[in-house]
Amino acid sequence: MPVVSIRIGRGRPVETKRRLAAAVTRAVADSLDVPAEWVTVLIEEYDRDNWATGGELHSDRFGPGFGRDGTGREET
Amino acid sequence: MPVVSIRIGRGRPVETKRRLAAAVTRAVADSLDVPAEWVTVLIEEYDRDNWATGGELHSDRFGPGFGRDGTGREET
Amino acid sequence: MPVVSIRIGRGRPVETKRRLAAAVTRAVADSLDVPAEWVTVLIEEYDRDNWATGGELHSDRFGPGFGRDGTGREET
Amino acid sequence: MPVVSIRIGRGRPVETKRRLAAAVTRAVADSLDVPAEWVTVLIEEYDRDNWATGGELHSDRFGPGFGRDGTGREET
Amino acid sequence: MPVVSIRIGRGRPVETKRRLAAAVTRAVADSLDVPAEWVTVLIEEYDRDNWATGGELHSDRFGPGFGRDGTGREET
Amino acid sequence: MPVVSIRIGRGRPVETKRRLAAAVTRAVADSLDVPAEWVTVLIEEYDRDNWATGGELHSDRFGPGFGRDGTGREET
Repeated sequence: MPVVSIRIGRGRPVETKRRLAAAVTRAVADSLDVPAEWVTVLIEEYDRDNWATGGELHSDRFGPGFGRDGTGREET
Repeated sequence: MPVVSIRIGRGRPVETKRRLAAAVTRAVADSLDVPAEWVTVLIEEYDRDNWATGGELHSDRFGPGFGRDGTGREET
Repeated sequence: MPVVSIRIGRGRPVETKRRLAAAVTRAVADSLDVPAEWVTVLIEEYDRDNWATGGELHSDRFGPGFGRDGTGREET
Repeated sequence: MPVVSIRIGRGRPVETKRRLAAAVTRAVADSLDVPAEWVTVLIEEYDRDNWATGGELHSDRFGPGFGRDGTGREET
Repeated sequence: MPVVSIRIGRGRPVETKRRLAAAVTRAVADSLDVPAEWVTVLIEEYDRDNWATGGELHSDRFGPGFGRDGTGREET
Repeated sequence: MPVVSIRIGRGRPVETKRRLAAAVTRAVADSLDVPAEWVTVLIEEYDRDNWATGGELHSDRFGPGFGRDGTGREET
């Protein structure tokens, strides 16, 4: 009964979470050879001022929002 | 100094959290034979679109809300 | 389907863990009014040199072992 | 930069972990449209006497070992 | 690539988080002799009715807010 | 009462952990203006075959051990 926590930047639409939960569950179930129904997925969303890389808040480093933008800047 | 994290669906009233924290603390303190004052309890609340079982978001599987409803459907 | 993590010092005998898991599960199930079978309990054991209070490792502060000893010293 | 924690029963061979990390990373990267290199996967292994369902330790419920066995018994 | 989670009471201003992330990253990087850029810091904020000490919610024990106040009351 | 979890590669000597716990505690206490005695630090050690970046286990990517080596290779 694997329990998976996925920490990401806050703000993804529900359709993305739906796809994420389905894909990760399938990956875990297939890799471990257990039924998908045994897999629990927990998504933890973080505001960008609660995530830092290199000691710098992502709200300072990347501005508001989430995901990669057109400029190739990184995401939370 | 045990530290306990309890992950549940978001939305329980504060009275439920009060009862939960008291009961879990007593269970931990009694089982481990330590003073209750040493026990920390952290409640992590998850929206139903951040919790999935069998690859399916609970918002899709159970609808909005939390806890078991009158139809015996499951909870987050 | 609550998921509970309990962080304690390493070394408790299995009988203590058995009692701990049963008591915490009952406390959670009763408080939230869900079936006990929905509750997952995960016990995370820490060596004393991986736990610090006030910036001091518990292996330095309390010596080896776990739990309160006869001198009233604290535990991990 | 998603950070994923996967809690499983202890004892899987390294080849299974290798497959698990690769598959979960691909699932996360594809679902969120981020480069695989941004994804961190942490595997947390639990002994069966540190995992309980329904208040019962998995070492009591399923015996030693991990994964589903030939009898269809569940896994940690 | 250390990953640090810091659990605190909700409500600190962004300037405090900025200082916290910078200081903790420097402490980790210096202590482990790794580049600061390898360090990830995640801040988890808890409402006071989701944090309990001695079985008592901090919202009951300390009232609303966070941090120590002028009366020397404790914080989450 | 901040609770800090630090996830690192397994194998650091106790002197490094002692320095890490002291430095992180001081950073947290100073940044949040709380007494050091309120700060709990938990160190979670991971074997390299339980940590992956880009879908690749660190035991495969960096070989055994931990920390940066003389070739500038990264660490867990």
